[in-house]
Order: sequence, then structure tokens, then C-alpha cells
Amino acid sequence: MAAMDFWVSVGSTYSYLSVMRIDAAAEAAGVAVRWRVFNVRTIMIAQDNIPFRDKPVKQAYMWRDIARRAARHGLPVRVPAPYPLPQLELANRVGILGLAEGWGEAYLRETWRRWMVDGQPAGESPNLDGTLAALGLVPRDVVAAAESRAVGEALEDATDAAMALGIFGSPSFVVGAEVFWGDDRLEDALDWAAGRATALPAQG
Amino acid sequence: MAAMDFWVSVGSTYSYLSVMRIDAAAEAAGVAVRWRVFNVRTIMIAQDNIPFRDKPVKQAYMWRDIARRAARHGLPVRVPAPYPLPQLELANRVGILGLAEGWGEAYLRETWRRWMVDGQPAGESPNLDGTLAALGLVPRDVVAAAESRAVGEALEDATDAAMALGIFGSPSFVVGAEVFWGDDRLEDALDWAAGRATALPAQG
Repeated sequence: MAAMDFWVSVGSTYSYLSVMRIDAAAEAAGVAVRWRVFNVRTIMIAQDNIPFRDKPVKQAYMWRDIARRAARHGLPVRVPAPYPLPQLELANRVGILGLAEGWGEAYLRETWRRWMVDGQPAGESPNLDGTLAALGLVPRDVVAAAESRAVGEALEDATDAAMALGIFGSPSFVVGAEVFWGDDRLEDALDWAAGRATALPAQG
Repeated sequence: MAAMDFWVSVGSTYSYLSVMRIDAAAEAAGVAVRWRVFNVRTIMIAQDNIPFRDKPVKQAYMWRDIARRAARHGLPVRVPAPYPLPQLELANRVGILGLAEGWGEAYLRETWRRWMVDGQPAGESPNLDGTLAALGLVPRDVVAAAESRAVGEALEDATDAAMALGIFGSPSFVVGAEVFWGDDRLEDALDWAAGRATALPAQG
């Protein structure tokens, strides 16, 4: 079966659209998706890539654009959502842990929904404990495990792996060596994974 | 008839896709398009928004992404093209003049084609004189007119007008007060202009 990796990082606003869309889109395209969590802030600092935080015009545009795109895809959203997120590292640590334990995708969807619809910053109460409780987990136990050195190293390793692939933003979709960045490239990436993309002419 | 403004600035790589696509897309959507030239570099400097020049990973991605998007749309392209462009101001001055005189759209299409397919930087020889000659114009006369104070002020005024609308990048599509940025929003903008976009829920 055609396959694709979905690299996503809590703290990214536009990733909300992909987190909510990817399951149905991938199923329709016949592509198996593996979710990967990383820390996009680490990469953006390393690459001096600050797209929104100190750019008020772009940031105002971002919220309007997300509202329009969400409407286009039939998704609820309430903008502006809290941004940036102080506790994104913990939110991503829990994501790494959850993907290893089998509840990561549900955790990520509910985390983004509470952030982008209910206005609750991710990685802190009431988003974090509410999300974990909704999954039938014990928030205190999960947070203790997520704060362990092992999970911290797993997040760093995943972030290093993302950077080595050429990833610089979230969401990214990776098919072999081919990186697609941004929710608006989800369909292009699925076409590529399924072998339906237009072949590129040789360059040189 | 539904109407939309197409704000574009020579020097923008992704704008190649829109310059080549917009006529057919707008005709299919039943939307009348007015082309507007501005100087995006002025705005990006004012807003400290440097998306590619000092970011090698993003820049490498940009070229690959443009090649893929061009293939998707059946457009020729040869990447990487020369970038950034030293003479983009003159290229945009000629664009402003051309739009006022009726040959601007043809000039812009041929300028981008020579830049992104033939590898000729815009705003200088052989791109500038070759493009103007292909349109049946006398390059020396056009360049003299484009270098006049009046045309320089027209470009500054257009850039101020773009910034007042909330434009921060090229290409942008404007319908009333609604700004859409990026070639990948061309279809969204046309839907909006034609009254086919999904209504946004009230925010507050």
C-alpha cells in the first residue's frame, strides 16, 4: 500500500487543518499514513525562521486565512486562538508518548480541537488534562512519563530526524525523500504517494 | 460581473505560476481580473519579512515545490532560476507603465517566462529588451519612460495602496477587503469573487 509520513508539531496553527483532514483524505487516496511528532520551534530557531510572531500583518492574515480554509473544509474554528503556546514542548512530549502507546492520534486531534475551537492553550490545563481524561488516561501519570528524560530524548531525536529530511515547518508530509510543506500541499503529497503526481521534467 | 484584483510583483518566484494560470482560471470562474503591479521588496523590508534569501533549507524547498506545482499545472519551468533579482525595480516600473498603456499583461507573462524558463533575470538584458521587442516596442524608449519620476511615483503609490490593503507578499488576490496570498489561494479567491465560497461563521 502507498505510504506517507505526517510530521506535525503542536504549536503550529495551520496544522489544525491537516490533523482534522488527513484521515479521510488519506483513506480516499488509498495511502497509509504514519504520524510523527517533532518540535518545530527548535528547527525554526535554528534556521532563524520566525514567520508570524513579530509580523502583525502576516499574523492577522494567518487567522483570517485559517478561518476561510476551515470553512472551506467544513471544520469548526474560533480565531484568533491563543498564540504562541508557552507549553508546546510538553504537549509534543505527550504526543510522542501517545504515538508510541497507541493513543497519539486521538490525543493530537483533541488537543488541537480544544486549542483552535475551545480556546484552550495546548500543553496545560484545562486542555492537557481534559484531553487525557477524555481518552480514559490518568493525566498525572501521563505527564510524569512525558517529563522523563527518555521521552525528552525521543522528541529531540524525532526533531533531528525531521531536520535531516529537510523539514522546516509543520505540517509536513514526506514520501521517500520528497517533502511537502503546509496543509495546502496535503493533496499534492497524497497524489505523490499514490503515484498520481505529474512527472517532473529533468532539470540541470 | 464578479471582479478581483491581481497584485503581482516581479521578483517573486511563485508568482510565475499565477501569472501563467490566472487568465484561464478566471475565465472558467467567470471573474474579471484587473492586474496591479507593486514592489513587494519595499513591503518585505518594511515588515522585516525575508522568507527565503537567508534561509537555505526553505529556499531549496521553494525550488522543488515550484517545479512540482508547475508540473501539476502543465507549465514549463527550469529551477533554480536566478534569484534574487538585482533589477526588479526597473522590471516593475516597466510593468506599471505597460498596464497603463495596455501591454502590461503580455509584458509580465513574457518577463516571467524568460526568467523562470530561459534563466534570464528580469529587468535587464536580454530579458527586458527581448521582451519589449517581442511586443513590438522600442526598448530604449520604454526604459526611458519607465525611469521617469512619474512612473517611479506610480510604483510607490501602488505599493502604498497594496500595503494599506494588508498585502505583504506576491501574488495576492483581492476581492473587496478580502486578501488572499499565494498561488495556492488563486482558486479560493476566485470562488470568493464569484460568491461560491463557504460562508464564515461569526467570530468574537
